[in-house]
Parts: sequence; C-alpha cells; structure tokens
Amino acid sequence: MSSSSPHPRTIRAVSPPFPSLNHVRHIVLVLSGKGGVGKSSVTAQLALALSQKHGKKVAALDIDLTGPSLPRVLGMAGKSVRQSRAGWVPPYADEEGKNVAVMSMQFLLPNEDDPVVWRGPKKNAMIKQFLQDVVWGPLDYLLIDTPPGTSDEHISIVEYLLRPTQTALAKAEEGDTAGLPTAPSRGPVVTSVLVTTPQQVAVADVKKEVKFARTVGVPVCGVVENMSGFVCPCCGDVTPLFSSGGGQSLATEYDLAFLGSVPVDPTLVRSMETLGGSTGAPAAEGEGESEAKGEGGFVARFKTSNLYEAFGGIAEKVMEAVGDVPTSDATA
Amino acid sequence: MSSSSPHPRTIRAVSPPFPSLNHVRHIVLVLSGKGGVGKSSVTAQLALALSQKHGKKVAALDIDLTGPSLPRVLGMAGKSVRQSRAGWVPPYADEEGKNVAVMSMQFLLPNEDDPVVWRGPKKNAMIKQFLQDVVWGPLDYLLIDTPPGTSDEHISIVEYLLRPTQTALAKAEEGDTAGLPTAPSRGPVVTSVLVTTPQQVAVADVKKEVKFARTVGVPVCGVVENMSGFVCPCCGDVTPLFSSGGGQSLATEYDLAFLGSVPVDPTLVRSMETLGGSTGAPAAEGEGESEAKGEGGFVARFKTSNLYEAFGGIAEKVMEAVGDVPTSDATA
Repeated sequence: MSSSSPHPRTIRAVSPPFPSLNHVRHIVLVLSGKGGVGKSSVTAQLALALSQKHGKKVAALDIDLTGPSLPRVLGMAGKSVRQSRAGWVPPYADEEGKNVAVMSMQFLLPNEDDPVVWRGPKKNAMIKQFLQDVVWGPLDYLLIDTPPGTSDEHISIVEYLLRPTQTALAKAEEGDTAGLPTAPSRGPVVTSVLVTTPQQVAVADVKKEVKFARTVGVPVCGVVENMSGFVCPCCGDVTPLFSSGGGQSLATEYDLAFLGSVPVDPTLVRSMETLGGSTGAPAAEGEGESEAKGEGGFVARFKTSNLYEAFGGIAEKVMEAVGDVPTSDATA
Repeated sequence: MSSSSPHPRTIRAVSPPFPSLNHVRHIVLVLSGKGGVGKSSVTAQLALALSQKHGKKVAALDIDLTGPSLPRVLGMAGKSVRQSRAGWVPPYADEEGKNVAVMSMQFLLPNEDDPVVWRGPKKNAMIKQFLQDVVWGPLDYLLIDTPPGTSDEHISIVEYLLRPTQTALAKAEEGDTAGLPTAPSRGPVVTSVLVTTPQQVAVADVKKEVKFARTVGVPVCGVVENMSGFVCPCCGDVTPLFSSGGGQSLATEYDLAFLGSVPVDPTLVRSMETLGGSTGAPAAEGEGESEAKGEGGFVARFKTSNLYEAFGGIAEKVMEAVGDVPTSDATA
C-alpha cells in the first residue's frame, strides 16, 4: 500500500545536523497528537526490540521536557547523566549490554517531582543541547520520544534535524501548507512513527499529527496502535478494551503503513509500577554508573513478555522502511 | 484533612482580570501533568454535574490549543462559534437549557483534523483572546481545561488571571520558588482540580503539577482519580483497571482533599465514540445555532449514567471549597 504512496517514508537529515550525530544512521521520531496513548511505552519497547531482537545499537531521547516519562517506563528512575569532557554521557537502560542509552530531562532534575516551568525558548534551547551536547557515539537508531501536540518541541526538533525546511516551517506556522523542498545530504535517515489508541478521540488528534508531519516535511513510516486490547495475565488471551480498529483505519485513510497493534500487558504495566526511586542531577565522571536500581524490571522482563514478538515485528517494519538490513549484527 | 492545610484552597483573581469576566463567580482550572488521564472528560462531566444536578450556569474553556478534545467529548464536533458585535458567542453543550457554554480552538478550525502548529507566543495571544473576547455573560462557574505539562499555556492562564503574581512567576521560571503574594480583590474566586489516573507514571507527573500550582500560587481544591476501574455495562459492577489508590495517596502526600474516584463507563465512552462530524469556522450571527448534531449522545445520557452521582459528589466538594452554597438555583 505505502510503496505506491506519494508520501516518502524517509528523508535525509542535513549532513550532519550536529557533529554529535555524525555516527547516527537512523533517527525515528515517535509522534502522537494525543497524550497518554503510550508514546513513551512504545518508544521504550521499540528501542528494546531493536536492541534485543535485532542486535542494534540504540539510544532514546525524551524531548517531553515538562512531562518526561521514558526513564520511569524503563525503570531508570535512579539513574543520572555523567558529565565528561566530551559532553553529557547518558545512562543505559541495559546496564550490562550498554546497547540502549537514554537521555531525558528527568535525569537532570534535583528531585523526581520537580516541575519544569518553561516557556518555548527555554525548551527549544534544551532540545538543541540534547542533540549537540550529548555523547551519542555510533548508533544504528536514535529514537526521539515527543510530547503531545504540535508546538515548540515539535517545530524545534524538525528545524534542528531538517534545517533546509526552516522557511517552509515558518510559512506553515502562518498557515501556508505548501510543499517543502526535500533535504539533500549524507546525514542520518529520518522518519517517524505515529502512535494512536483505538478510540476516536485519540485518532482525531493523531490525524492532526499526520497533517503536521506532512506540513513540515517529516516522513511517516507507519502507524502503531497501542492499547488495542488487554492481555490476560493468566492465559495470554487478548480481549478488546474500548473500541478497536482505529489505527488500521487511520493508516488506510492517510495511505500509511500499519506497523502493528499492541495490547496492554498488565504484567509489564506492573513491572513499571513497582519501580520507584528518585533521579539525580548530573554527576561527575565515574559516578552514577552503579545505580542500576530497578533494572531487573521492565528491561529484563521484556524479552519474555507477550509483547516481545509484536514489537520485534514492528521494529522489522521500521528497519525495512529506513532501508536497514533486517538481520542482527550492530555496526555503526 | 485539608481544612488544617497550610495551602489555601482558593484565591481571588485580580478584580476583574478582564471586563468579559465581570460576572463570573468562580474559575476552576482542571490540571494534570500527564496527557490522556481524562482532563477533558472530567471537565465535561464536572460541567454537566454542576449544571444538571446543582442548577449552576457553567462554561468550559478548552486551552489545549494543539490537542483540543473537549468538543468531541461533549458531542459538539459539528458546532461553531458565532461572531456577534460584543465578541465570540460560544455554542452550548445543551442546546435547550443553554446552561453549559463551551469554547475551544477546535470550533475555529476550517477542518476537523487541521493541526495548530504554533509556538508559545501565538498560543498565549489566543488564550488572552479566549478570556477577553468571548461573551461569557453571567456564570457561576468557568471551568478551564488545560493541556498536559507546565509550559506556555499554564504560565499564561495563571498570569492572565492572577496578574500580581507575574514577578513571582518570572522568578519561578528562574528556579526561585519563594512564596507569592496573595492577590487581593473582588474578582472571581479561582481554584484548581488535579486529575490523575491510578498508575504511578501518571501520579509522578501529577506531583509535578502540584508543585507547579504551589510555585505559581494557584490553589488546589482537590484531587480526582479518573479511570479507577471499569464499570460493567451489564451489571454496573466496578472492577479495577491497572493498579489503584494513586489519587488518594497523592492527596494524602500533598495534604490535598480527595474529591473522588471515577471509573471508566464503556457506555459513556461509546457515546463519545459514535459522534463524528466536522467543526466549522466562526459563523456569522444567526448561523450555526441549528447544528445540534450529536447532542442526544453524551450530554443526554450523562444524567442516567453510572457516573452522574459520582460527579455530583465531586461537584459538591468543589462548591464547598469555593464557598458556594451547595443547593440548586443558578444566579449570577
């Protein structure tokens, strides 16, 4: 379906947008108009699937600055960012493998429940810092978890990654949604994944996000429907929750690939729930590495969860879309 | 518990912040750090309970500009704003009673799925316009539905309503969370309601919102826990969904009143789902009034739903908190 689509599924970033991203092969934005549809949960599990099932070197960047939830989903509440001479060194979701690095505003807060009361300009500056001041190293995939909506964070990340589109973006802000030039270059291949839940309220907001992506020139490689049903903790049977089919019909309507549907697995939800702990401010080099608290939870259990195969399949479709060979062996 | 709290539950707005709010008695902000916890659904049902059960004259203002969902929740997708000489006239959720007016960015979009790609300054200007250019008329309650997070929309609405705190707000943005002067005046009584779901991920984000409210000087009258369980469509029995007790423990931890827990009622969810339709741009005077499409859905069914009593009780607690007499009879 999507092979005949007039909408490209990937685009090259400017070459390279920041030196820190010199060795990043693919960038995947995780988008959704609506909050609470599980963007962070999908980002986390896509990262783990790419790493654990497909042997990829992955990092996840959380640009939801005022509501960062990626660290908690991955059981990383106790971890912190190291300050090295080269820049910020992000902690790993998998302490032994060191294959899934995670960067989030949450790691920079003195107290776990401190609010970030920032208007746009400060948020934009922090997103730029995340892109240019973090020691990303060689990566097969940099996943970027975004906040709900279509405002500063979204406009900024697109501007930073696809700079030639800046004028077109400014025009889009003025309501002129005319076509955008495709960015040339040898930079990372950029694409996005749209997350929705089956309900109409969520689908309506995600439609806005599809239009946003098309307006600003971000290609979409497909749609993931989250919370499609409930996995019985006892027998593994999936029963529908709310209504269903919203993701598939959204994909059809907008000529997008449907990447898969993901049920709610209460066992995994519980493994997120049981992990507490507070985050720390950036620690000096050498510190913070031993705080592997909670790691036995989500990351360890994912491989044996009911969702491992589902996300393995979604990861494979993303890999195909960006032209990555769907085999193991992580190389930069 | 909260009567002995050092945190006030209400505050007077400046007198009056805008002439358009001259006859508004109470303003209730509906806050939540996290998206998807049901802020719009709680706002809608609180508005209906105040109107249908307690005879109050109510309006609901949706300041989630990039993800407006209040119109859809209330089955108002086909309605539009009228332009009169006095300003914007909002449509009603209840066409006969005309007791629940609703204003949302969604009513101003040419197409239902058009994204609003705006940075902070444009959002702030629109929020100001919503407050000063809408013909609010005499109201017992103006409920304000907010987006997730603690950024432009939140800072702006607080600045517009509680102007004396501006300097303190600016300081808070710089990290100085020192106490704020209480606003004097005869303006509307302002308070807020915090919405959370039972899960730890949501509670963690709502804690940030509590701290935000205290930082910027917005009083909180209590916590509502949404999606506490699942109401069986067959027998009305409530079974827990995810984990439980997050709202109550949050209230206890921060010395806040617990206003009540609200289960998911699939019957009501379905009445939201089945209402489609597109919104219209502001129509000329006289137009738009006949588009009562979908009204038979949510608004009509609410009175006989399993949640009517639950929200009636929550509304009563809010009324007590703001010093409103908990009887019927709507007067301005």
